[in-house]
Amino acid sequence: MKRIPVLTPAVLMSLLWLNSVSPVTAQGSQPAAARPEPIKPIPSELKLDAEKVALGKQLFHEPKLSRDNTVSCATCHDLHKGGTDRLIRSVGIGGAEGLVNAPTVFNSGFNFNQFWDGRAHTLTDQIDGPVQADAEMGATWEGIRAKLDRDPEYVAAFKKLYPDGIQPANIKDAIVQFEMSLSTPNSKFDKYLRGDQTALSSDEKEGYRKFKSYGCTSCHQGVGVGGNMFETFGAMADYFSARGNVTKADFGRFNVTGREEDRFVFKVPSLRNVALTPPYFHDGSAPRLKDAVAVMGTYQLGRKLLPEDIDQIVKFLNTLTGEYEKRPL
Amino acid sequence: MKRIPVLTPAVLMSLLWLNSVSPVTAQGSQPAAARPEPIKPIPSELKLDAEKVALGKQLFHEPKLSRDNTVSCATCHDLHKGGTDRLIRSVGIGGAEGLVNAPTVFNSGFNFNQFWDGRAHTLTDQIDGPVQADAEMGATWEGIRAKLDRDPEYVAAFKKLYPDGIQPANIKDAIVQFEMSLSTPNSKFDKYLRGDQTALSSDEKEGYRKFKSYGCTSCHQGVGVGGNMFETFGAMADYFSARGNVTKADFGRFNVTGREEDRFVFKVPSLRNVALTPPYFHDGSAPRLKDAVAVMGTYQLGRKLLPEDIDQIVKFLNTLTGEYEKRPL
Repeated sequence: MKRIPVLTPAVLMSLLWLNSVSPVTAQGSQPAAARPEPIKPIPSELKLDAEKVALGKQLFHEPKLSRDNTVSCATCHDLHKGGTDRLIRSVGIGGAEGLVNAPTVFNSGFNFNQFWDGRAHTLTDQIDGPVQADAEMGATWEGIRAKLDRDPEYVAAFKKLYPDGIQPANIKDAIVQFEMSLSTPNSKFDKYLRGDQTALSSDEKEGYRKFKSYGCTSCHQGVGVGGNMFETFGAMADYFSARGNVTKADFGRFNVTGREEDRFVFKVPSLRNVALTPPYFHDGSAPRLKDAVAVMGTYQLGRKLLPEDIDQIVKFLNTLTGEYEKRPL
Repeated sequence: MKRIPVLTPAVLMSLLWLNSVSPVTAQGSQPAAARPEPIKPIPSELKLDAEKVALGKQLFHEPKLSRDNTVSCATCHDLHKGGTDRLIRSVGIGGAEGLVNAPTVFNSGFNFNQFWDGRAHTLTDQIDGPVQADAEMGATWEGIRAKLDRDPEYVAAFKKLYPDGIQPANIKDAIVQFEMSLSTPNSKFDKYLRGDQTALSSDEKEGYRKFKSYGCTSCHQGVGVGGNMFETFGAMADYFSARGNVTKADFGRFNVTGREEDRFVFKVPSLRNVALTPPYFHDGSAPRLKDAVAVMGTYQLGRKLLPEDIDQIVKFLNTLTGEYEKRPL
């Protein structure tokens, strides 16, 4: 059965932007017949409500969103750690480890679905998960509303922006507005895509060339350099048998659909700012970027990448680090 | 020059408790002539002002204590991660990595000094460091006061507990009251120390025996199983030459005193709840407890510990995990 496209923020973005961004080939020095680049720059300006973004930022860092007031969204999605906690698996209010590695919150609005297994279509739906999960924030929306209601600053901020004041839907809306502001434009690579041939070194360019020619862009493409499809982890070789200790969390999308063909299937993660978000994969098994690239070569491409290949591809991946609030992330 | 003892919370605690706790030998099955145990149980009840503790807990988790409202004390001292962030080095508001591994906030009141290099005598003095450091929370006390002044809940809570309301000294006092509540009594090992011979397995007891006989208790003793002296990292062999990449942060106490004899000298860390706080050492270089024990054997004891020794000592160290708020940490 074919998936039906929905107007997620990511789809909206691509509709809005794919037409307005000139492919590098129109301005660059390559022959005009060159194929369009499979990766597109992140739009530099987003039309968002600055006041809602500011309120959402405060809520994102608000420990009152957890049952015992000790965990905020930022605990696991720290803006200063590439939007992650840099742990193999996150830890919630119970002190229990989560089941999978926390994905970055940066550019999450470009993802076609949320979570590793894509079980939430939108950022708004995603929020319900961690806020209410016992092992994460363990809260209820009513409990959160009651706590925020006691803070006149929140009461005034909501009243100004939402006619019905502090309501779960409005809390989520403000957080989503903030999350939509977490795009990271102006990476070295995006400057290159926009026509600045000097933005990348020759090694970085060669890394990008290999990234394309080896087939990484089959999955890692678009504005997000990933985040827009599902794929089997272990497409060319059996990753999980090699790793061992398979748990339910490794079943991925199967846990959502119950379809055998979805076992070991995950959302392809965005590679934007990937240099800042170790460790890698849903299981956090790759401590460094070069480990992750080697694993991808073996299990997704069916080829053992040479150290020089890995080194150049890592150099290219490092150019995907963008800016947040006009400063390098 | 000899150090002059001061009445830190740790010293006060030991004065209060050393006399009231019976050594295990008075009740246990060992001969009466056995030496007193070098490790003492954590007192189960602390006399603290519950309202100040609650206010301090809120402040500890309050991102308004950082310049850009994105980092709280709990960011690097997460109660659900053993009072640490489980990273090699912490990350502050600038996204910059700190210079050393963040020590746990649990039982920090027992430490004779704060920070790896002991540059703060008291918890109260310690707070000024991370709150004001550019690479950590980057705030000013005046800025924090202004933000808290806009929140009537904070205004009322301070007014009730402190005659002069929201003042930097009172903010620090409440946080220290909370930190003093972060002791973790009733570990398996403390139950054993109090006379319950069944609290430890034979391997755990053997691990403790080796921990003492190999000399670990020369430094790791007292209520904190450490935290009450300085020692050279590399007392028996040159740790830093072996590790390489020596930086100023490795100079330890030398950075405080400027005395050559203090180069590579650090506060001996408490081993309470050590199983929960990887990675280990000021440089975060040991990812697992067994790695840390092996390094200690080589560089502090001058002996290569056998795998069985390490295994048993690790089992003993696991018994040092206590309770917080009556629940296992």
